Amino acid sequence: MAQNDRGILALAGGVGGAKLALGLSTVLPAEALTVAVNTADDFEHLGLSISPDLDTVMYSLAGVANPETGWGRRDESWNAMAALEQLGGETWFRLGDKDLATHIERTRRLRAGETLLTVTRTLAERLGVRCAIVPMTDDRVHTVVTTDQGELAFQDWFVARRCEPAVREVRFEGADVARANPVLLDMMGLRGVIFGPSNPFLSVAPILALPGVRAALDRTRAPRVAVTPIVGGRAIKGPAAKMLAELGHDVSALGVARYYGGLIDGFVLDQADSELKAAIERLGTKVHVVDTMMQTDEDKRRLAAATLEFVDALACRLQHS
Amino acid sequence: MAQNDRGILALAGGVGGAKLALGLSTVLPAEALTVAVNTADDFEHLGLSISPDLDTVMYSLAGVANPETGWGRRDESWNAMAALEQLGGETWFRLGDKDLATHIERTRRLRAGETLLTVTRTLAERLGVRCAIVPMTDDRVHTVVTTDQGELAFQDWFVARRCEPAVREVRFEGADVARANPVLLDMMGLRGVIFGPSNPFLSVAPILALPGVRAALDRTRAPRVAVTPIVGGRAIKGPAAKMLAELGHDVSALGVARYYGGLIDGFVLDQADSELKAAIERLGTKVHVVDTMMQTDEDKRRLAAATLEFVDALACRLQHS
Repeated sequence: MAQNDRGILALAGGVGGAKLALGLSTVLPAEALTVAVNTADDFEHLGLSISPDLDTVMYSLAGVANPETGWGRRDESWNAMAALEQLGGETWFRLGDKDLATHIERTRRLRAGETLLTVTRTLAERLGVRCAIVPMTDDRVHTVVTTDQGELAFQDWFVARRCEPAVREVRFEGADVARANPVLLDMMGLRGVIFGPSNPFLSVAPILALPGVRAALDRTRAPRVAVTPIVGGRAIKGPAAKMLAELGHDVSALGVARYYGGLIDGFVLDQADSELKAAIERLGTKVHVVDTMMQTDEDKRRLAAATLEFVDALACRLQHS
Repeated sequence: MAQNDRGILALAGGVGGAKLALGLSTVLPAEALTVAVNTADDFEHLGLSISPDLDTVMYSLAGVANPETGWGRRDESWNAMAALEQLGGETWFRLGDKDLATHIERTRRLRAGETLLTVTRTLAERLGVRCAIVPMTDDRVHTVVTTDQGELAFQDWFVARRCEPAVREVRFEGADVARANPVLLDMMGLRGVIFGPSNPFLSVAPILALPGVRAALDRTRAPRVAVTPIVGGRAIKGPAAKMLAELGHDVSALGVARYYGGLIDGFVLDQADSELKAAIERLGTKVHVVDTMMQTDEDKRRLAAATLEFVDALACRLQHS
């Protein structure tokens, strides 16, 4: 794949992955970055095709993301939602007025027969994004969460029930027959693969569940580095820590490193968790300790640069091993 | 039809019909007014089911219509449209943020299998409308305009081309097999039928084109009164005057009265056109001359009251004839 030559492939879900992707986009030439995004949270709502993670990544890279919510657009208005409420429509999933335009246009294009890949490229280009954002697949994959209150569709569990029901299992309906985007199937020429600081079970696992992705990760000689989504035993955002506990993992960066196991060569650990460095290294994973918190754009740039340095350092080691 | 007993059935298209309907709603008990609305302008746009005339009537009766545009909601914002423009979407048909919610909710309900009648009732009730607004049919009817630039779908001609191509013919695809709403098929017990000051060719003609409607108008003993959409040879709003000319009619209230011919017993003529009274009466149609301009809500109430008086006066004449 020419587009992958010496490039970085970043795997991303929502906020954390999007922030790191933005950081990477500021330190890499546009053609050297491809962000492959989870689509297992995608769903149809109000007749519209909604791709929450693709939009979070796209809005982040376009500089129009809402920093308060972690989803949707900045400087947003909510007049359609207010009117919909008056009409008795469903408003549990909040769609801002500008954000609605994205879903309307995506839905229109998908119905006209375009692939999600093409639609995403068009929308991202229109918003001024220069690197490649690719959905993990053009096929339909749906996260289903088995909880102590039964099986729940992802958004029902995540938004409507605020992640409260305890998770027993997560599965990705359709993943076994979905065709992964080609960038996920041939990672041979890459400079590195970066697992963003996204929820391992909800954002990265669906990508890994697509046929051929684990094999491609196994085959590549490019360094594979995960950035921790857990700091001090807590998730930066979202239910990752809660899920680590409920699914029987160590509620720590160590639990995440173990979960990724042999799929990664390196792990970016937060400085607050430096006491876990030795334990993670005993798994056979190199560890780089930095400040992983991304509040400002400068934080994102700094973490991206540090992660890339780590990737390149691992490349030297891998070539000599 | 119990709902029609001694009630008024008003036929309406967009702005003019909606204004008169609002006037009628202020002088009649809610249960005594049914507004049957043209749906031949309905179309699908951006994947949404849009019913321009139903919405204009609904917004008017709910007191939320935009008085400047004649369509859409008052106190509207346009953030979705602006975002859609940025995304390269189609923005020639302007949809405000609040208005979008109506189309989203209508589309969702129609897709779930509800009829347009039921959806309209629900939305209107939610907006606080107390009288009945009924679509002329639940079936699909589409206005097609034959012009000097070929056949055009209605919204293409009306909005995108600003009514500029000269009209040679108007037809209503699907009207011949559509089932009219029952209120249009049994007008026996009515106090009166009022043709709103709507475009005869675009708003009233589609209603008359539905199987059984002309027969019901022929059979009823209730007075049938048309309110002029033309004053001083000009349409209050829209292309009615232009179409009268292009379709070979007299560009005047007389042309409209002739067009309705034997379907009406009375004609409400504007005071500016009082010189046409005698000519219209020679058609066998009684004429009532008033100020038909509806700027304020008081104007609407006054015209509605005058029209109802005329209806009741005609009832006496019809009973004695």
